[in-house]
Amino acid sequence: MSNEPTVMQKIVSLCKRRGFVYQSSEIYGGLRSAYDYGPMGVELKRNLTNEWWRAMVHSREDIVGIDASIFMHPQVWKSSGHLSNFSDPMVDCKVCGERFRADKAPTAGEGDEISLELADKGRAKVALEKAQELAGEGVELRREGKHIRGLTAGDRGYVCPNCGSPFLSDERQFNLMFRTFHGPVDPIGDMVKAVTRAAEAGEDPRQAAEKALEGSSVYMRPETAQAMFVQFANILQSTSMKVPFGIAQIGKSFRNEVTVEHFIFRSVEFEQMEMEFFVEPGKGPEALEYWKNERMRWWSTYVKEENLRLRAHGDDELAHYSDGCFDVEYKFPWGWDELEGIASRTDYDLKAHTEGSGKKLVYFDPEAENPETGKKGWRYTPHVVEPAAGATRGVLAVLCDAYDEEPGDESGKGKRTVLRLHPRLAPIKAGILPLVKKDGMPEKGREIVERFLDAGVNAKFDQQHAIGKRYARHDEVGTPYCLTVDGQTGDDDTVTIRYRDDRRQERIKVDEAVEVVRTALAEGTR
Amino acid sequence: MSNEPTVMQKIVSLCKRRGFVYQSSEIYGGLRSAYDYGPMGVELKRNLTNEWWRAMVHSREDIVGIDASIFMHPQVWKSSGHLSNFSDPMVDCKVCGERFRADKAPTAGEGDEISLELADKGRAKVALEKAQELAGEGVELRREGKHIRGLTAGDRGYVCPNCGSPFLSDERQFNLMFRTFHGPVDPIGDMVKAVTRAAEAGEDPRQAAEKALEGSSVYMRPETAQAMFVQFANILQSTSMKVPFGIAQIGKSFRNEVTVEHFIFRSVEFEQMEMEFFVEPGKGPEALEYWKNERMRWWSTYVKEENLRLRAHGDDELAHYSDGCFDVEYKFPWGWDELEGIASRTDYDLKAHTEGSGKKLVYFDPEAENPETGKKGWRYTPHVVEPAAGATRGVLAVLCDAYDEEPGDESGKGKRTVLRLHPRLAPIKAGILPLVKKDGMPEKGREIVERFLDAGVNAKFDQQHAIGKRYARHDEVGTPYCLTVDGQTGDDDTVTIRYRDDRRQERIKVDEAVEVVRTALAEGTR
Repeated sequence: MSNEPTVMQKIVSLCKRRGFVYQSSEIYGGLRSAYDYGPMGVELKRNLTNEWWRAMVHSREDIVGIDASIFMHPQVWKSSGHLSNFSDPMVDCKVCGERFRADKAPTAGEGDEISLELADKGRAKVALEKAQELAGEGVELRREGKHIRGLTAGDRGYVCPNCGSPFLSDERQFNLMFRTFHGPVDPIGDMVKAVTRAAEAGEDPRQAAEKALEGSSVYMRPETAQAMFVQFANILQSTSMKVPFGIAQIGKSFRNEVTVEHFIFRSVEFEQMEMEFFVEPGKGPEALEYWKNERMRWWSTYVKEENLRLRAHGDDELAHYSDGCFDVEYKFPWGWDELEGIASRTDYDLKAHTEGSGKKLVYFDPEAENPETGKKGWRYTPHVVEPAAGATRGVLAVLCDAYDEEPGDESGKGKRTVLRLHPRLAPIKAGILPLVKKDGMPEKGREIVERFLDAGVNAKFDQQHAIGKRYARHDEVGTPYCLTVDGQTGDDDTVTIRYRDDRRQERIKVDEAVEVVRTALAEGTR
Repeated sequence: MSNEPTVMQKIVSLCKRRGFVYQSSEIYGGLRSAYDYGPMGVELKRNLTNEWWRAMVHSREDIVGIDASIFMHPQVWKSSGHLSNFSDPMVDCKVCGERFRADKAPTAGEGDEISLELADKGRAKVALEKAQELAGEGVELRREGKHIRGLTAGDRGYVCPNCGSPFLSDERQFNLMFRTFHGPVDPIGDMVKAVTRAAEAGEDPRQAAEKALEGSSVYMRPETAQAMFVQFANILQSTSMKVPFGIAQIGKSFRNEVTVEHFIFRSVEFEQMEMEFFVEPGKGPEALEYWKNERMRWWSTYVKEENLRLRAHGDDELAHYSDGCFDVEYKFPWGWDELEGIASRTDYDLKAHTEGSGKKLVYFDPEAENPETGKKGWRYTPHVVEPAAGATRGVLAVLCDAYDEEPGDESGKGKRTVLRLHPRLAPIKAGILPLVKKDGMPEKGREIVERFLDAGVNAKFDQQHAIGKRYARHDEVGTPYCLTVDGQTGDDDTVTIRYRDDRRQERIKVDEAVEVVRTALAEGTR
C-alpha cells in the first residue's frame, strides 16, 4: 500500500485545515458520524442551499417554500409508513457479540463449509468454546491459530461479518427514527414501574414498557418531505396556488444509520432540499420527465457534467406506489453514488394522510373537466413528483469536484492546491488585499470592502502575510476573485483583479470593482 | 369579557390565514408547542436571520460563523453543567395526579387553612377519599360541592396548582434536554433486561435502567452556544483570528419545556442566533458595554425603539461565574419579555471544557505583556461575552411590531390591515401587478419580475383578482413596494410604484425600477 494519501483523505484534511468541516465534539474524542461546519463550510453550505432556494422558490411562480418543525405528531409517521417500515433488519452474533445489518452481511449458502476468524488466538479460544456449545455434540470443531474450522452454514443465507459465525439471533427490525420523549414525563421511571408491575403479574415486560412510553414518544423527522403533505390544505388556503404547483423545504433530518460512511456523505444528522410538485392525476410521468431534466441542469451548473449521471430505478427498486424514479448520481472518489432522488409517487402520500387524519387533502379545479361526469369542475387528490436532494451530500460533491492540485513547473514553482468552486458557491467572493501595510493601502482596502458589503457581496479584508501566501490561502478556500490595492491605486484609483482558476490579472477601476465582481458572479466567470 | 379578539389572537389568525405560521401537524390535532413556517413565514424568518448574519459575520472582520451539529458528545453537557443543572423541579399531586413545576406553583405557608377544589362533584368525591386517607385519622375532611375543606398546608410552601392539595410527591429534577439513543442499540430491550435482572438480584431497578442506557444516550442541544467553545481550538487553527474575535451561529435548539406559552414565543423547538466574543482577561465588562449597545442598535432597526428596553440582571439573577448580564426586552402584547440575553461569562466555559476534555483551550498573544512575568508573550484563557438572541422570538416581535389596522374614513372606506415590516424583512420585496390581464400587461409584468430575480430581489408576479384586492393582500403580508403595469406603460415604459405604509404612488421608469427598489431596501424607505 502506498503512503500517498487518497483524494478523500486530502479533502478531509483540507476541510479541517481551512475550516470547512470538523468532527463534532472532537476534543471529547468525537461523536460518531456527526460533523460541524467551520467558518468556510458554513458559508459554502449556505450558498449551496441559497442557490437551490433561488432556483426552486424565488425564481418560480409555481413553487412556495415552508420550514416545518423537526418534531411532528407521531401519527404522521404511522400514516407515512415510517413507524412500521422504515427499519433495517438487525442481528446479533451469538459467538462474538457483533450487531450487524442482515442485508449487508456476507452471504453463505446452506451447507457451505465455513471457518470462523477471530482477532487473535485468545479470542479464538473463547469463541471455540461458545461455538462448540452452540453446534452441539454431533459436530467437532477445531482451532487453528485464530481460526475455527469444521462448521457448515445453516439456512440463514449469511454469516457474521465480524467472525464469520453462523450462530445468529433472530432478525429484529431496527427502526431508523430517533425516538425521544415529549412533555413533563419521566420515561425511565414510568418504564421501570411498568416493567416491574408486568414481571409481578407475569405479563410481557417489553410490551408493558412500550405501552408506558407510547403517550410521550415523539420522533425526529427522518425526512423533510412529510410536512408538505400534512400542511397541503393550509398552504392551499393561505396562498393562491393552483395545480400544478410545488412546496419546497430545506432542513435537517435524522436517521440512526447503522452504516455511516464516506465523511459527510452518510451521517446520522444531515440536511435535505426537498420539493413536492403536485399535478393532475395522470400527469406524474410528464412532470417526472420535466424535473429529472431540470434537476440535472441545476446540478451541472455547480459540478462537471462528466461527473453526473441519471440512473433509472428498476422495477425491483420501485416502491409499490411509485410509477417511476430516477437518481441523480455523482462520481465521488469511491464511485458513483446518489445525490438526489426524483420520484413520481402518484397520490400515495396525500391519500395516506387523508386516511390517517380523516381530513380531506384534495384539490378542486373549477375549470377542469371531471373525467367521470364529463362536466366542468373536478375534485381530485393530486399526484406528486418529488425531487429530493441531499444538501450535505451536495456540499461534499462540490468539494470533491472543485478540489485540484497544480504541480507547478519542473522545480515545483507555482505548485498549489486550488478549490475550483463555482464563484457563487465560494465562501468568500472577493479577497481585498492591500499589497503592504502602509501608504494608505489598508485604509483604501477597507473602503473597498465596505462597498462590497453594502452591495451584499461577501468580501474579506486580508492583510496578513506576504501577498503570495495570501493568494495561496484564498486559492485553497476557493475565493474566485482577489483584488489587490497597490502603489498605483493611489495614483489612478485602480486595483488588480486576480482570477483564481488561471491566476490571470487585470487592472480595473475601483469605482467599477463591485459591478465587475457582480457580473462575474452572475455569469459564473472564473 | 369582550368578544373582540385580542391583538395576539388577531396576529395568530393573520399568521395562519396568510401563510406565516401554522400549528405543526394540525390535521392530526397538532403537536403541543410545535409550529411550521408557511410560505410567508419561511421568508420572514430567513430574512431576519440573514440580516443578523450580515451584521454579525459578513460585515465584520472580527467574527466568523459556524454551523454545528445538533447532536454533540454527551460529555459536552456534563462539562457545561447542563446534565446536572439544566432542570426544573417537578412534583406530582397525590390527590389529582397533576404533574407541575414546584417553582411555579401557588404558595401556601405552613398552617394556612386551605381548601381543595376539583372540577366537579364526582371528582371531589374520589379526591375526598384519597385526601382523607393521606391526611390520616386525626383530621376530619368534609366535602362541599366540588370543594374539600378542613385541611392546613404543610411545610412545602406550595400546593397543587390544579386542585390545591398539599399532598405531594418529593421534588424530582426534570432535565429539559431531550434524550435519545444513538447507534445500533435497542434501548427499550436493554432496559427491560436490566430492570428484570435488577429485580431478581434485589438491586435498584432505576439505577440499573440508567446504567443500561448510559452508553447510547445522546441529547438534542438545548442551546447553540457550546459548539463555539468546543470548537474554539479548531477555529483558531483554521483561521487567522486574533483576540478579540467572535464565533457566531444560527440554528435550532430544543428544550422540553413544561410551560409553553404565547404562540411561538416559548416552544420546545426554536431557533437561536448566538455569538461568543472572546476577549483578554479583564476586558469582559468593556465588551459587555459595547455589545449591549450594538445589539440594541441592531434590534431598533427592525422594531420601534419605544418597544425595546435593556434590563440589567440583579445580583440574585446572575450565574455565579458571570460578571454582568443584560436582557434586551420587547414590549409584547402580554408585556415586556426577553428577546436576547447579553452576558459576560468570564472564562467559565472554556475552562469547563478544558477540564472536561483535558485539551487546553487557550490563546497565545506574542505581543501582549504577560502580567505575571512582565515579559512579552501571554498565554491565557480568553473571557467571553455572549449576545444570545432568539430568532423565533425575533420573528414574533417583528410581527407584533408591524401589525397595524387602519380604520379608514367614516364609512370604513380605506380600512385595512397592514404589516409594517422593515422592507428588508418583508417576505416579498416587490409585487409586480399587471392592471388587467390583457394588452401585453402580463407579459411586461413577467419581464419586470425577471429583472428583479436576476438582481437577487424577491419579486412576485400577481395577476389574480382586482387591483385593490391585490394591494390589500400585499399589505397584509407586508410587501413594501407594488409595481403596477398599466395602460401608460406601453407608451412611455413607466410603471407606478405604490408604497405600502402610506399608499403613496409615484411613476418610475421600468429601466430604473430595480435600482429604485434596491436603494429603498438599503435605506429602509417605506
